[in-house]
Amino acid sequence: MIAKRDIINYFILYSIFNVVSVNTISLSTLKPHPDEVTELPGLTATLNFKHYSGYLNGLPNHRLHYWFFESANNPATDPLLLWLNGGPGCSSLDGLFAEHGPFFVKPDLSLGLRQKSWNHFANIIYLESPVGVGFSYSRNDNISESLNDNVVANENYAAIKSFFNKFPSYRRHPFYIAGESYAGVYLPTLALRLKNDLSINLKGLVIGNGLHDMNSNFNSILYYARYHGLLDHTLWLQLQRTCCQNGQIADNQCHFFQSHQSDCLKYTKRAYNIIFTQGLNMYDVSRDCQNSSSMNIRQHANILTLARKQISYAVPPCMDNSLIAAYLNLARVQKAIHTPIGQAIQWTVCNLTIRTNYDSIYPSPILLYKQLLPKYKVLIYNGDEDMICNFLGAQWAIQLLNMPLSGEYQPWRIRKENGLQIAGFTAQYDRNLYFVTVKGAGHMVPESQPHAAYIMMKNYLDGKNPKDWH
Amino acid sequence: MIAKRDIINYFILYSIFNVVSVNTISLSTLKPHPDEVTELPGLTATLNFKHYSGYLNGLPNHRLHYWFFESANNPATDPLLLWLNGGPGCSSLDGLFAEHGPFFVKPDLSLGLRQKSWNHFANIIYLESPVGVGFSYSRNDNISESLNDNVVANENYAAIKSFFNKFPSYRRHPFYIAGESYAGVYLPTLALRLKNDLSINLKGLVIGNGLHDMNSNFNSILYYARYHGLLDHTLWLQLQRTCCQNGQIADNQCHFFQSHQSDCLKYTKRAYNIIFTQGLNMYDVSRDCQNSSSMNIRQHANILTLARKQISYAVPPCMDNSLIAAYLNLARVQKAIHTPIGQAIQWTVCNLTIRTNYDSIYPSPILLYKQLLPKYKVLIYNGDEDMICNFLGAQWAIQLLNMPLSGEYQPWRIRKENGLQIAGFTAQYDRNLYFVTVKGAGHMVPESQPHAAYIMMKNYLDGKNPKDWH
Repeated sequence: MIAKRDIINYFILYSIFNVVSVNTISLSTLKPHPDEVTELPGLTATLNFKHYSGYLNGLPNHRLHYWFFESANNPATDPLLLWLNGGPGCSSLDGLFAEHGPFFVKPDLSLGLRQKSWNHFANIIYLESPVGVGFSYSRNDNISESLNDNVVANENYAAIKSFFNKFPSYRRHPFYIAGESYAGVYLPTLALRLKNDLSINLKGLVIGNGLHDMNSNFNSILYYARYHGLLDHTLWLQLQRTCCQNGQIADNQCHFFQSHQSDCLKYTKRAYNIIFTQGLNMYDVSRDCQNSSSMNIRQHANILTLARKQISYAVPPCMDNSLIAAYLNLARVQKAIHTPIGQAIQWTVCNLTIRTNYDSIYPSPILLYKQLLPKYKVLIYNGDEDMICNFLGAQWAIQLLNMPLSGEYQPWRIRKENGLQIAGFTAQYDRNLYFVTVKGAGHMVPESQPHAAYIMMKNYLDGKNPKDWH
Repeated sequence: MIAKRDIINYFILYSIFNVVSVNTISLSTLKPHPDEVTELPGLTATLNFKHYSGYLNGLPNHRLHYWFFESANNPATDPLLLWLNGGPGCSSLDGLFAEHGPFFVKPDLSLGLRQKSWNHFANIIYLESPVGVGFSYSRNDNISESLNDNVVANENYAAIKSFFNKFPSYRRHPFYIAGESYAGVYLPTLALRLKNDLSINLKGLVIGNGLHDMNSNFNSILYYARYHGLLDHTLWLQLQRTCCQNGQIADNQCHFFQSHQSDCLKYTKRAYNIIFTQGLNMYDVSRDCQNSSSMNIRQHANILTLARKQISYAVPPCMDNSLIAAYLNLARVQKAIHTPIGQAIQWTVCNLTIRTNYDSIYPSPILLYKQLLPKYKVLIYNGDEDMICNFLGAQWAIQLLNMPLSGEYQPWRIRKENGLQIAGFTAQYDRNLYFVTVKGAGHMVPESQPHAAYIMMKNYLDGKNPKDWH
C-alpha cells in the first residue's frame, strides 16, 4: 500500500502564507515605519508603492517573516490579499519572486519589475509560514515540534491578527486569502478561524492547483497521465481491471494509491514510476525538467517502496529556484528586509524537516467549504498542464460538494495582441463557488501564464463572473 | 448523425507529398539541370546543397510541382525522403517552409535558414499533390474530377516514377515516404503500389499525427477533450450514458460521431461545439488561435448541422500561413522555382475544392500495414498537444493490428542545454512498428518541437531504436 503521507511528501506543494504586521502609516506619517524597506540591493527603479518586510507573531515564540506590498494603484481602497505557497514547508517568497510579486531576480542578481504584478490592483502580504519556513524562526529554536493542519491554521490566524495590529488601517479593507497547492488545506482551515473573528473583513478564498481531496487528487493523476500519453493502453487496462469498481474505468471510480489489492498496487507502482521517477516535470508536463540535478531518480523510486525517510530533496524536483535563493541569501538583502540582526539565515524554497514531519489531518478539505460558501466567494483555479494537483482532481473534489453546475461550463477569454483568445474554461457551481482552468499553465499558474493569471485575479477581486472576464 | 465526411472536411489535415523528378546531375555535370534553382528571391546565404523545383508527371495531363533538396551532408549516400502534407488538398510546401525544410519566410519576405532542416541528413522531395494543390495543375484544366484515396495513390506513384526518371541516380538510395495528418491515408496506399515495383527501394514509412482509423480518431477527440479540461463532468456522464457500450466509459468503447442514438448525438454536438467552434486551436490546444480571423464560428457551427457545403475556409482555422502564401505569390519567386511561364498562380496552403469533393475510401488505413510491416519499417509519431489527430486515436488504431507491445512503453530523451530531457514516449509493437509521442508538440510536430523532430527523424533513418535516440 502506498501511504497517503508518503505521496504527500513525495511532491512539493507550493503555498505561501505571509501575514504582514507593520502599522499602516503609509498614507500619512512623518517617520518611516520600522519595517519599511527603503532600499533593496539590485533594485534601481523608483517604486510607486511602499513595501514592508519584517516579522509577525505566530504561535508563541514563533516569528513569521512577511513582506507586504502596498498597491501601486490605490492602497487606501484596494483589497488586501494574503498569499500562501504550499508544501507543506515551502516559502511564499517563491510566489513573490517567481509568480506575481513586483520583483523578479535576474541572472546577475539584480531585480526586475514584473509587468503583471498583482500589487497593481491589490495590497499583498507574502507570509512565510509556518515557523521554520524561509526566514521565519522560533525564539526558542524549537521548530521540530510536530506540525499539522490545525497547528498551521492557528499559526496563520495569529499572524494575521499580528498583521492587523501592525497595520490597523487595513482592517477595513476587503480581505482575501489566496494560495496554491497545499494551500488547498491551509486556506479553508484558516478561513474557519477568520469566520469567527468579526474584526476581520474576510470576503473570499482563492486556491490555485490546490490539494482539495486526497483521493480525488492522487487517483486523478493516473487518468491525467493516461490521457496525456504517459501510460500505454495495456497498463491502463491492467489498472482498470484491478483497481476500478466493477473493473470499469469511470471518472473517480478507480482507487489506485490506497488500494489493498496487490495487483492493483503492482500496476499503480509501475505507473507512478513512469510519472514520477523518469524525469518528467510533474508541475508542468509540457515543460522540461528545469533543474534536472534536483531529480534524483533513486530517491524517488524509494518513496514508492515506502522508504519515506529517504526522501531528501530540499527543492521541488525539476523546478529551478536557484536565483531566488542566491538573492535572498545575500547578507545585504537580508539586512534590507530586516531579518534578525547578526544572524545570517540560509534561505531555501522549502523546508525538508517540516515536510517530512508534517501530519495531514484533513483528507478532504474541500468539505470545509460547506461551512464557508454561504459567506465567502471561493475561486478554485487550475493550470491545466500541472499533473501533481491536476484540474481533474479539483473537479472531482468539487463534485463531493454535490452542487449542480449553475450555467454552462464554458471558455473564458483574454484580449491579446493576436485577438481575443481562450484562456481556459470556467464553471459556476454555486452563487459563491467558481472553478476556472488556465490553459497552458502549470502548477504555478502566474509563473507560466502571467497575463491570464493577472486578468483572473483582478476580475475576481472586482467581483466579476469568470465568463465576463477579459 | 454527424457524417464522417463532414468531419473530415471540417478539419484540415496537413500532408505533403512531393516527388522530385530532375536528372540527378548534382554530383558531376557541366550544365545546370533545368530545374535547378539557381537564385531565390530573399535568399542571401550561400547554400551548401543544390535544390531543384519543377514538375513531375502525375496521372495523365497532371503536372505536379515538386521541390527537391539535396542533402547538405552527403547527397550521394544519404537516404531519399518524400514528404507529403495532408488535407486532403493541402500543400507540402507548408512542410517545407513551416516545418522542416531548409528555408523559412521572415516577415519582410526574405528567407532564413532553418537550423533543424531535415536536409542536414536526407535528400528531401516536397511534392504538391494531388493535382490542383499549390502549384500543381492539369494540362486540360480539369481538376474538378472526383478525387479519392486510390486516385491520389496512383497520382503519387506516378510522380515518384517521374522523379526517378528525372533523377535516376537516386534510385539506389534507401527511400522513405513520410507525411502528416491525412498522409495517414496517402502513405500506406502509396506504399502498396511501391511494394509491387521492384525498381524502387522503399525502406519505410513515417506518419506524423496521422489519420489511421476514422472511428479511433474521431471518437478519441472527446476523450482527449475531457481529459484536457474542455468538457465538464456532467456532460461527460451524459455522453457516457448515451454513447458508450454498457453506459461505461472505457478506452475506445464509446461511439460518438457516428451514433444513431439521438441523445448521444445531442451531447456529442454539444461537445464538438466546445471543441471546434469556440476559438480553440484544435491543432495545438496549448497554443493560441494564431489567426483568429480564419475562425468563422458560424461556419463551423453549420458543419455540425451537416450543412457541409457551407464550409468555406480556405486556410486551416487558427493557423497562420500568410507569410508563406505572400512569399510564394511573388512573381519573381514563381519564376525562380519554374512555375509555368506567363501563368501567375495564386498559391494557397489548401485547396478547398479538392477537400470538399474528396471521397475517403479507407475508413481504417491502419489495417493496410498488415501487408506492409513484414517488409517496411513504420514509425507512427504524434505531437501530444494536437487534438484533431491526437495520440490516443493513433494508439487505438494501432490496437486494431492486434500486436502486443514488445518491450516497455517508455520515455525517449533528447540532450538539451538543460540536460537530458524527456522528449516523449515510445513503444515498439512489432519488429518494424514503432509508436512515438513528441511532448509539447502540436499537429505539425517539426514546427512546434523542431529539435525533437530532428533527432527523431535522423535516428529513425539511421535505423536506431527510439529508446536509444538522443
